[in-house]
Amino acid sequence: MPKVVIGVMGPGSEATAIDLQNAYTVGQLIATEGWVLLTGGRNTGVMQAASQGAKQAGGLTVGILPSAARAAMSEAVDIPVLTGMGSARNNINVLSSQVVVACGMGAGTASEIALALKAQKKVILLNKNASSQTFFKGLAPELVSVVEQPIAAIEIIKAFLSDEDHVNRTVE
Amino acid sequence: MPKVVIGVMGPGSEATAIDLQNAYTVGQLIATEGWVLLTGGRNTGVMQAASQGAKQAGGLTVGILPSAARAAMSEAVDIPVLTGMGSARNNINVLSSQVVVACGMGAGTASEIALALKAQKKVILLNKNASSQTFFKGLAPELVSVVEQPIAAIEIIKAFLSDEDHVNRTVE
Amino acid sequence: MPKVVIGVMGPGSEATAIDLQNAYTVGQLIATEGWVLLTGGRNTGVMQAASQGAKQAGGLTVGILPSAARAAMSEAVDIPVLTGMGSARNNINVLSSQVVVACGMGAGTASEIALALKAQKKVILLNKNASSQTFFKGLAPELVSVVEQPIAAIEIIKAFLSDEDHVNRTVE
Amino acid sequence: MPKVVIGVMGPGSEATAIDLQNAYTVGQLIATEGWVLLTGGRNTGVMQAASQGAKQAGGLTVGILPSAARAAMSEAVDIPVLTGMGSARNNINVLSSQVVVACGMGAGTASEIALALKAQKKVILLNKNASSQTFFKGLAPELVSVVEQPIAAIEIIKAFLSDEDHVNRTVE
Repeated sequence: MPKVVIGVMGPGSEATAIDLQNAYTVGQLIATEGWVLLTGGRNTGVMQAASQGAKQAGGLTVGILPSAARAAMSEAVDIPVLTGMGSARNNINVLSSQVVVACGMGAGTASEIALALKAQKKVILLNKNASSQTFFKGLAPELVSVVEQPIAAIEIIKAFLSDEDHVNRTVE
Repeated sequence: MPKVVIGVMGPGSEATAIDLQNAYTVGQLIATEGWVLLTGGRNTGVMQAASQGAKQAGGLTVGILPSAARAAMSEAVDIPVLTGMGSARNNINVLSSQVVVACGMGAGTASEIALALKAQKKVILLNKNASSQTFFKGLAPELVSVVEQPIAAIEIIKAFLSDEDHVNRTVE
Repeated sequence: MPKVVIGVMGPGSEATAIDLQNAYTVGQLIATEGWVLLTGGRNTGVMQAASQGAKQAGGLTVGILPSAARAAMSEAVDIPVLTGMGSARNNINVLSSQVVVACGMGAGTASEIALALKAQKKVILLNKNASSQTFFKGLAPELVSVVEQPIAAIEIIKAFLSDEDHVNRTVE
Repeated sequence: MPKVVIGVMGPGSEATAIDLQNAYTVGQLIATEGWVLLTGGRNTGVMQAASQGAKQAGGLTVGILPSAARAAMSEAVDIPVLTGMGSARNNINVLSSQVVVACGMGAGTASEIALALKAQKKVILLNKNASSQTFFKGLAPELVSVVEQPIAAIEIIKAFLSDEDHVNRTVE
């Protein structure tokens, strides 16, 4: 039975201390809800912190890696998916996530947010980068939420999944 | 901590009754060993049968889907990875699998075996298709094994993982 | 002998009249310089207009299509590359372009700009979207230029290619 | 106006002297017909030889590279498409080719033939590898032709394109 999969995206080596703390907490909270955490899988930055948070809370973690081998993978990833596709794998990250949480900002993260919006995915921005908030909300106001705390992201995801459920039941 | 991931590949709608039975049993045995089962994720043929076998034995199943949406996914897949890449996703299937078991034969399966050999992966053929056995053993004799029974595939995987472990320990 | 390849990216059905005019002119100017035009290849929006401009000026056009078949391809594309990968092909668009010109804005275009910056590519924004200019210049000030007219984009590309040549000669 | 694109696939460093001679001649003949040659683009083996043949005859050459940069590209490629996707790019090679000619054999070439058959593409085998001929003809008898000389491949392509034309005209 397919599980709920939530993506957490964010910078690697350029993540700030606050990004890492937010990512860790979001990972923990996702695991606590019983959802699977999906990240880019590398052993750095937001990917690593979110995966470590999820493992600390007993969760299951999937990493969609840009490389073709297990090297440079986070030890906190349970299931490494090796794409060998570099940044083209960013589209897989967002297609496979029911909701995307972006912690912090950078070029790779911006590409994931934009690809998520292109695919009509719900995106939650957890950062203090005002220009990114203005830009992405301008692109797709109905899909983008901005939050300041990890717990607020979880509340939005819960509401979204419950709406989606309702839609699915109505359709059947 | 990364888990052991074993791939089972094979035809969709053109799988034979024997292919389906073999795939189901291989899936069961993989789960019994505590390994994660990776398939192409669709709700048909070898992918579906292997996933159902693994779930019957309490295992964890990953499906790397050619589509961008959850439609046409097997209900026996726990973690759907949606690539939206069609058959290009076959390369992800084999890169992400530590060993590839091919149940039955078809054009898609042949592409997965060939991509696995290109990536220097161990491949186990579980079929009665003599011309595929001759061809693939000719391409890479040291990587290809032919078996008649699911249990023989499991024995080969165990030996391979134990060798790999030994190699890794020696390297460290 | 490899030719110079310049990418022009932009919205499909949501392109504005000014985006289309700019794309057509940029396509013409690229062809006039003897460069190959690369676009996303579809028969709509900026992709179509740029390709038509390049053909009007006697140029050569490449289209990297999201689909697996020639349907929905612009008739102004000489060489269709069929990826069957949906938006994951956006990364191929930018990797294959020596410089990326973005005409107009949308989620797909934003993903191409971000992927280009991730790959350390020079990007020229030809639009009036102030929030996109602020955001992308903030991400990578040294890689992003903003212009108001197609001819200004061509001047920047010429300077870039001539620098790159110089770098290459110095390295040898 | 989209051009006719014909793919020539084959081994890199493991190509035999006969494979290289055949690839060069097929490249020449493709260019002589006014068709675009598409290969995997690297500076080795069948890819390189076919591209050199096509350039000698004044043709246009496209290379779909596994890498993200122009390094290791054949100088005989006019239009490099940089995928950064490794062997997953093999699926793009075959989707973009109206007919696939396989010169010689190896794991990568076998994956391209199999992916081509999966996509219902016409494939011409130009090799002396009997087990590959038996295997692939068994997989898809109606799609696979075996030839001994480059000129025979060209005759088959001409007949195929002329049939396809006829089909298209009838459909309209």
